[in-house]
Amino acid sequence: MRPWFNAVTNPYLAPFDGSLRHGRCTTKPPRDVPDKKTLRRQLKDLGEEIDDLQRMLYAGDQFAVLLVFQALDAAGKDGTIRAVFNHVDPAGIRVTSFKRPTELELEHDFLWRCARELPRKGNIGIFNRSYYEEVLAVRVHPEFLKFQNLPPYRSEKSLWEMRYESIRQHELHLVQSGTVVIKFWLKHSREEQRQRFLSRLNEPEKHWKFAVSDVHERGFWSKYMQAYQAAINATSRAWAPWYVIPADSKSYMRVVVAETVRDTLKSLKLSYPVQTAERHKMLDQMRKELTKPGS
Amino acid sequence: MRPWFNAVTNPYLAPFDGSLRHGRCTTKPPRDVPDKKTLRRQLKDLGEEIDDLQRMLYAGDQFAVLLVFQALDAAGKDGTIRAVFNHVDPAGIRVTSFKRPTELELEHDFLWRCARELPRKGNIGIFNRSYYEEVLAVRVHPEFLKFQNLPPYRSEKSLWEMRYESIRQHELHLVQSGTVVIKFWLKHSREEQRQRFLSRLNEPEKHWKFAVSDVHERGFWSKYMQAYQAAINATSRAWAPWYVIPADSKSYMRVVVAETVRDTLKSLKLSYPVQTAERHKMLDQMRKELTKPGS
Repeated sequence: MRPWFNAVTNPYLAPFDGSLRHGRCTTKPPRDVPDKKTLRRQLKDLGEEIDDLQRMLYAGDQFAVLLVFQALDAAGKDGTIRAVFNHVDPAGIRVTSFKRPTELELEHDFLWRCARELPRKGNIGIFNRSYYEEVLAVRVHPEFLKFQNLPPYRSEKSLWEMRYESIRQHELHLVQSGTVVIKFWLKHSREEQRQRFLSRLNEPEKHWKFAVSDVHERGFWSKYMQAYQAAINATSRAWAPWYVIPADSKSYMRVVVAETVRDTLKSLKLSYPVQTAERHKMLDQMRKELTKPGS
Repeated sequence: MRPWFNAVTNPYLAPFDGSLRHGRCTTKPPRDVPDKKTLRRQLKDLGEEIDDLQRMLYAGDQFAVLLVFQALDAAGKDGTIRAVFNHVDPAGIRVTSFKRPTELELEHDFLWRCARELPRKGNIGIFNRSYYEEVLAVRVHPEFLKFQNLPPYRSEKSLWEMRYESIRQHELHLVQSGTVVIKFWLKHSREEQRQRFLSRLNEPEKHWKFAVSDVHERGFWSKYMQAYQAAINATSRAWAPWYVIPADSKSYMRVVVAETVRDTLKSLKLSYPVQTAERHKMLDQMRKELTKPGS
């Protein structure tokens, strides 16, 4: 069964056959990248296009759109979400940030807390982190598993395979129900992260963003790379694609994310619902009523 | 991947190989059924056993249990749920009745509204109707599909196949996460339904239960039988079994449901968490503190 949705293609689309190698995914913009001012103008135009498309999404009420953002610390997730979507009517969009799970959430299956926040038809839902943490951070730190009271499983490897399969099937089910699912890994380099942490330490208004654990996590960098690679290879499919976006340049990253979202929305061939002759007649009638003297 | 859970066997367990034929599933109790008084006593004992097992489920906090009840009108779903579970601590059990979906629910995938109500670890969740309506009532009345704004699908047949697959994968995911899923079809005969409707019409205190549409639905009886057969064949599996319980005798049906629940809970080999030597020492210490003069 091939679902109706097909990923839009661009240089950052992850392959569907498990052949992604994290070392070959660049973190840098191309050489011929436009200057910052041009990128900012492009981003503004893209934001307005996305706003227009979202209105049609809303009017048509046939599709929902789920955008998943994953990244290591200081890749610029929050800023990208803000910069790309701040032109969109907030009534049509909802960002959910998933932090440490609550006790109630840990006592449900790992998709549960995210499933509750899925976007309704006509809306865009943005997950700032997601159920993918369960095969990323938890895979890098399997000691978290002991808080999950899981039933017996054969091996840790088989647990990750089960989770990949759960995610694939969940996303396939969503697409078949009319929810478009696309996923972004904002990939910056270890050196870029070091620079950004340093700037957080040097600028008092960024101190709140800093946590000791952030630096500690740098020790797991290569394990994270492997976990991202495995998760993306297991779950990038034509109907639920991953895009690996170079994140060392924030202004370039934002434009690429915005383009990918714009192109995906465009591929849905959205339009305002067609009004029937009968409805046009009714609308004319209403216009007359409202323009009558004394109405 | 074989999940850790395996259905308990009894004469009403539906096969896992798609060979169920609804016409061969009896609606009547066996000939040697005990008298009503004996059945009532059995039910009371079973209810108390279930209560004991639920306490251990709660203390162990490793498994959740989901019981799905489906039936045609007047089969006795509500009464069975009440009779089987009224001994269980209400803090450990939650019944959710799914009626006509709301607009918000219709704007999500068909599993969404039920997924939100899934039981947490240590609890029993009871679904009075469920996502199965989407392949039962909706399959019998496909005109309901037009309220669901679905994306394109190849044929109606392929839609049901997709939904069966979604359900199988969802339930497999739940079992792998530690939620036991068992499903009951309370199957009464068309003649038994007619008698019960008549008694509703003849007893004023049952009038509230009566709706004209109930009688109208009788016209679709054989379509419902086919839809149940197809859905059960597609979704009865060793890790998420269906039981087709004869429902013409309420007292017998209740005992069989209670036995199946009791046996399923027993099969989990629940026990109170083992207290370590260290914890025993701490408990002794606390006992001393609390029995000191003036404490």
